[in-house]
Amino acid sequence: MENKKAAAPLPEDLPALRREYENYKALSLKLDMSRGKPDKAQLSLSQGLLTALTNDADTTVDGIDCRNYGAPDGIPGVKQLFADLLGLPVFSMFIGGGSSLEMMFDTVARLMLFGALPGMTPWGKQGEIRFLCPSPGYDRHFAICEAFGIRMIPVKMQKDGPDMDAVESLVKDPSVKGIWCVPKYSNPTGVTFSDEVVRRFAALSPAAEDFRIFWDNAYAIHDLYDEGETLLNLYDELVKRGKADMLFEFASFSKVTYAGGSVSMMASGEKSIAYAKSIIAKQIICTDKINQLRHLRYFGNADNVRAHMKEHAAILRPKFEAVLKIFDEDLGGVGVYTRPKGGYFISLDLPAGTAKRTYTLAAEAGVKLTSCGATFPYGVDPLDSNLRIAPSFPPIDELRTAAKVLCVCAKIAFLEKQTKE
Amino acid sequence: MENKKAAAPLPEDLPALRREYENYKALSLKLDMSRGKPDKAQLSLSQGLLTALTNDADTTVDGIDCRNYGAPDGIPGVKQLFADLLGLPVFSMFIGGGSSLEMMFDTVARLMLFGALPGMTPWGKQGEIRFLCPSPGYDRHFAICEAFGIRMIPVKMQKDGPDMDAVESLVKDPSVKGIWCVPKYSNPTGVTFSDEVVRRFAALSPAAEDFRIFWDNAYAIHDLYDEGETLLNLYDELVKRGKADMLFEFASFSKVTYAGGSVSMMASGEKSIAYAKSIIAKQIICTDKINQLRHLRYFGNADNVRAHMKEHAAILRPKFEAVLKIFDEDLGGVGVYTRPKGGYFISLDLPAGTAKRTYTLAAEAGVKLTSCGATFPYGVDPLDSNLRIAPSFPPIDELRTAAKVLCVCAKIAFLEKQTKE
Repeated sequence: MENKKAAAPLPEDLPALRREYENYKALSLKLDMSRGKPDKAQLSLSQGLLTALTNDADTTVDGIDCRNYGAPDGIPGVKQLFADLLGLPVFSMFIGGGSSLEMMFDTVARLMLFGALPGMTPWGKQGEIRFLCPSPGYDRHFAICEAFGIRMIPVKMQKDGPDMDAVESLVKDPSVKGIWCVPKYSNPTGVTFSDEVVRRFAALSPAAEDFRIFWDNAYAIHDLYDEGETLLNLYDELVKRGKADMLFEFASFSKVTYAGGSVSMMASGEKSIAYAKSIIAKQIICTDKINQLRHLRYFGNADNVRAHMKEHAAILRPKFEAVLKIFDEDLGGVGVYTRPKGGYFISLDLPAGTAKRTYTLAAEAGVKLTSCGATFPYGVDPLDSNLRIAPSFPPIDELRTAAKVLCVCAKIAFLEKQTKE
Repeated sequence: MENKKAAAPLPEDLPALRREYENYKALSLKLDMSRGKPDKAQLSLSQGLLTALTNDADTTVDGIDCRNYGAPDGIPGVKQLFADLLGLPVFSMFIGGGSSLEMMFDTVARLMLFGALPGMTPWGKQGEIRFLCPSPGYDRHFAICEAFGIRMIPVKMQKDGPDMDAVESLVKDPSVKGIWCVPKYSNPTGVTFSDEVVRRFAALSPAAEDFRIFWDNAYAIHDLYDEGETLLNLYDELVKRGKADMLFEFASFSKVTYAGGSVSMMASGEKSIAYAKSIIAKQIICTDKINQLRHLRYFGNADNVRAHMKEHAAILRPKFEAVLKIFDEDLGGVGVYTRPKGGYFISLDLPAGTAKRTYTLAAEAGVKLTSCGATFPYGVDPLDSNLRIAPSFPPIDELRTAAKVLCVCAKIAFLEKQTKE
């Protein structure tokens, strides 16, 4: 169970690896690297949020009594906060409850039922429609498509973003209505789309006038290091071309304050956001403005949010580095993995045909990983190669153990496959 | 401008009424009786909610860290609170964010897109579908139907609930998929459905297997007097007949704590709620459990909620009584109005053909009422008779003035019509 120097495993290592594996199994571990949940220490960073509003006098802002109905698209101060953090104009925004995923699901539902803009045919009445799914990608995006019966077309994720040659070619099909993107510190690859890729997104000329880019900017401010990566502002690039309505951008404070208990944001072009708001006006009277104001008062301004994110990074960074150190030392060149500068995941590509076996071996040894294949449309990784590692939640000691178990499992799976062939 | 004894207005009163009206107009009033918004004093009753959780140690309950992802259908304690208040089993429930309207909209959207139960054809793929709309009723229910293109069929609201002969007959049409009800202190009529009506609901045998009762129990605990009215438990009645899946019941704390910033609840039969949750699992990771726990800690138990509602009643009751007193004294028998024992509205039926004119006169004198016709499907009151009065928000002095203005307007409209005929 010591750290070892990286060395490719050889068939003769298999018995020793199996003994090592059995030793881990005997520990009855119960470790979980499956979901991008914040650590308790991260949640404690926001303790002050609980007392940001303590009496009635605190609950009014800009003439809005946040305890009562009103301000259905959110309070101005929170819009300004998102505007400063994301470089979006406040008029492009709708502020919602704690879940940006809900906004994405609801946006797909709205377009299925009501169309993208007034007068356009609802997606649900156009026969089979398709979405482009850069893969590996975020399993919950794919689950939305699957729920709605939207045909998913995988597009290869490269080092600078999705394969844009493929995207440009595929959008010539009028049944292609959207694309899912996590453009910064992508889930799970950690890739930040290059300026060139963002410009090619802005320059897209889809055959479908109701084609939409679902730009899930989930990790916009979630750097692990002081020098974060920079994402070109797609909204600005689209505005230059008069095409801002092609964008739905999403963000939330779920990994800034409380997961599911924060505030979320959706932005789009003028016509598109106005249409969305006109339908949302039938769905809600208003969102939880008290919680919005709590966030505004707690942070005050965007700089304080950024400072807060550095405290998150200080907790997360050692965890990422601990896992990567063990991969460096123990994986023995079995697979390649990302060294993300932000976000919540490490993506591990194992030799083709060994991911499922590795996942099962790890599960049987008490180490839970994100379901194998989950990072691909329909849960099918064509190469059976990718595993998503979520290092945020477990304590660092458990994380080290889990990473070591994973390395042993990956090597066993690799050797088993080799010896069978 | 003094109170006068009730006396039917005569044509010769018109000049004096017009002078009175002009005097009000000269005051440049800006009074609003249009929406059922809580008074500031009501909102202040919940000030303690702001400090119900003040540090990290407060944020865990039943092993659930409410700051993190998890418990997607809500925390057990809040389910138990709703269970105790509404007589529903916890397993029938989904706990959501601050808006029960959102749950209703989303439920219609789900059934449009995914069908009522697994394997059933989505409503959206069945051609034109219909909803029964007891009228006058809640404008936002009707707005949901209108948004989704669901054909609305008005059903007469009677003193004990909807005309059940009509309902029983109409549900024989398989295109009839639902009915909207506010069964207790109905919006706007204040009617609580009789036991007989509730039993007839439970005994319904609709032609459509995917017919659903939308039971918006918005005012379940919103009595104005110590002796509240009692609503038979439809869920229990349906369970007796093995038909609980026919029900979607909704409730929220929007008029208990903060409007739009509270917690909401949806309940249904076992299969139906399980199917709903399976789809909601694609929409959200979890709802705002911190705010759920805040409510649980603040109230502790159902009895404390009931005590809290008595404080609401103490604020609201004088407002209702002030308006009714002025109607008694000044309306001169022009129209009939309800004397609700709970809820948020007084329903005023004016002589046919005079509601719109009364509304316009009031608006021009600076008194805003709920849009004329809003209480009917498609905004069309066939008799042009009903006005919904919302006395909760304005200070009592303003309310008295607004009610007096309304009486003058109603009498003018009545006499204008009489003299024209």
